Amino acid sequence: MAELTNIKSPRVKAARRLTKRAFRDRDRAFLAEGPQAVREALALKDVTVELFTTVEAETRHADIVAAAVAAGVPVHRASGEVMSELTQTVTPQGLLAVCRFVHVPAAEAVPRGARLVAILAHVRDPGNAGTVLRTADAAGADSVVFTDASVDPYNAKCVRASAGSLFHLPVVTGIPVADAVRHAKEAGLRVLAADGAGTRTLDEVALDVPTAWLFGNEAWGLPPELLALADEVVRVPIYGRAESLNLATAAAVCLYASARAQRQTLHSVEDPTTPTL
Amino acid sequence: MAELTNIKSPRVKAARRLTKRAFRDRDRAFLAEGPQAVREALALKDVTVELFTTVEAETRHADIVAAAVAAGVPVHRASGEVMSELTQTVTPQGLLAVCRFVHVPAAEAVPRGARLVAILAHVRDPGNAGTVLRTADAAGADSVVFTDASVDPYNAKCVRASAGSLFHLPVVTGIPVADAVRHAKEAGLRVLAADGAGTRTLDEVALDVPTAWLFGNEAWGLPPELLALADEVVRVPIYGRAESLNLATAAAVCLYASARAQRQTLHSVEDPTTPTL
Repeated sequence: MAELTNIKSPRVKAARRLTKRAFRDRDRAFLAEGPQAVREALALKDVTVELFTTVEAETRHADIVAAAVAAGVPVHRASGEVMSELTQTVTPQGLLAVCRFVHVPAAEAVPRGARLVAILAHVRDPGNAGTVLRTADAAGADSVVFTDASVDPYNAKCVRASAGSLFHLPVVTGIPVADAVRHAKEAGLRVLAADGAGTRTLDEVALDVPTAWLFGNEAWGLPPELLALADEVVRVPIYGRAESLNLATAAAVCLYASARAQRQTLHSVEDPTTPTL
Repeated sequence: MAELTNIKSPRVKAARRLTKRAFRDRDRAFLAEGPQAVREALALKDVTVELFTTVEAETRHADIVAAAVAAGVPVHRASGEVMSELTQTVTPQGLLAVCRFVHVPAAEAVPRGARLVAILAHVRDPGNAGTVLRTADAAGADSVVFTDASVDPYNAKCVRASAGSLFHLPVVTGIPVADAVRHAKEAGLRVLAADGAGTRTLDEVALDVPTAWLFGNEAWGLPPELLALADEVVRVPIYGRAESLNLATAAAVCLYASARAQRQTLHSVEDPTTPTL
């Protein structure tokens, strides 16, 4: 296999342009870097378009390269310089896949029977968004919605922070928050906005029901018009002296509180007459 | 007030060297950047040694500068170049305090009556460590222990990620993990190691008792010899397909699960005879 060494070759340029959102949207493709992401991409049918690998990675991750070959995915050996050009990371991991978009149509934002959904309303930092996606996956969420005011789920930092979760569960992108909330309500989910403005805390609301969590911006949370869309605004209780939690942490606490409540038999302290299921 | 414009002036150089751990340890001082951290530092007695401020920040945060002056803290006006030299951030916030160390002696690692303690065993990323500190504060933890194999709590990135929490609760630094665990056990706390190796999950252990959580390295968790120190190894349940959670997220789920259990009346699914209070 000849090694790609010219960063100006058409193949490298075609992949390189996927570091920009406009070109991702035009080509309906994105870049997934590192063994974990590439392995997850290859586990899905017809997602991986081509694979770039350095000589070192080809040896270290021979199983992944073999899986690509077996799936009929073209594998290109690339020089370190070419890989640096494509990955934009300080220490490239030597494996990079060009992948087709994996998100599902807006109509599938809330899958049938869904009990836990995360809606990202104004999450702007790709690392935070990817972390929320990973956490939602871990918490067993049925889908994650990146609304039109949130970061692109195919941003390289988001893909990296999601640690493969982008390939695990239905992801929707680019729909208005109001549409996401409507889908959730129509599917019978209770929509809870996580925000410091909440009058009740996580400890005071019923979490064992199908729930869609709405998460806002890292710095300023959710604006009033979005808070108004939710069935209730709930805040994570601050038991100590911190002013707030960071977004990914707050989302983790909310998503896991719901996931655990849905799986445990809890008695409500406010309403001792609630029957135990 | 004359503006400091020379990055080689003795005052600037004396502060600048605090970006290095060896000098922080020698001077027993560190740098706290931004209005939130500076405000919290000034709220403590005898912590702030001096304050650097740009002209813009002096106007925008006049209340903070006034508080410094009222507390007898020397305020130095600094040029943008000097501030950049001191803060190492892409967008300096224009306020930077030189602070005395705030950690407490090892013997106070677990305060009398403590019910929730976080022990960082091998946390190496300062951003993660600071986020865990902030989360522990929010969850009402009684102290946070940075053991000798963990990052320096006075690292600028850690201070920034802690969002002021470094100044909120007792922090211990530089003690061996075994000592931290011994202090916790002697104080009657149950020591739970958070690790994927746990046989029981967070849903299966009693969390309403005084607990010290032991958190390991971002990539490889806790080594066997540290797992062996704990009363029990507990894993955060993964309900979906993610391989794991990131460290700060896992810590948030564990700390909040304990904090909420200690405050709520929960029925144990294993023991339906537990009376409701």
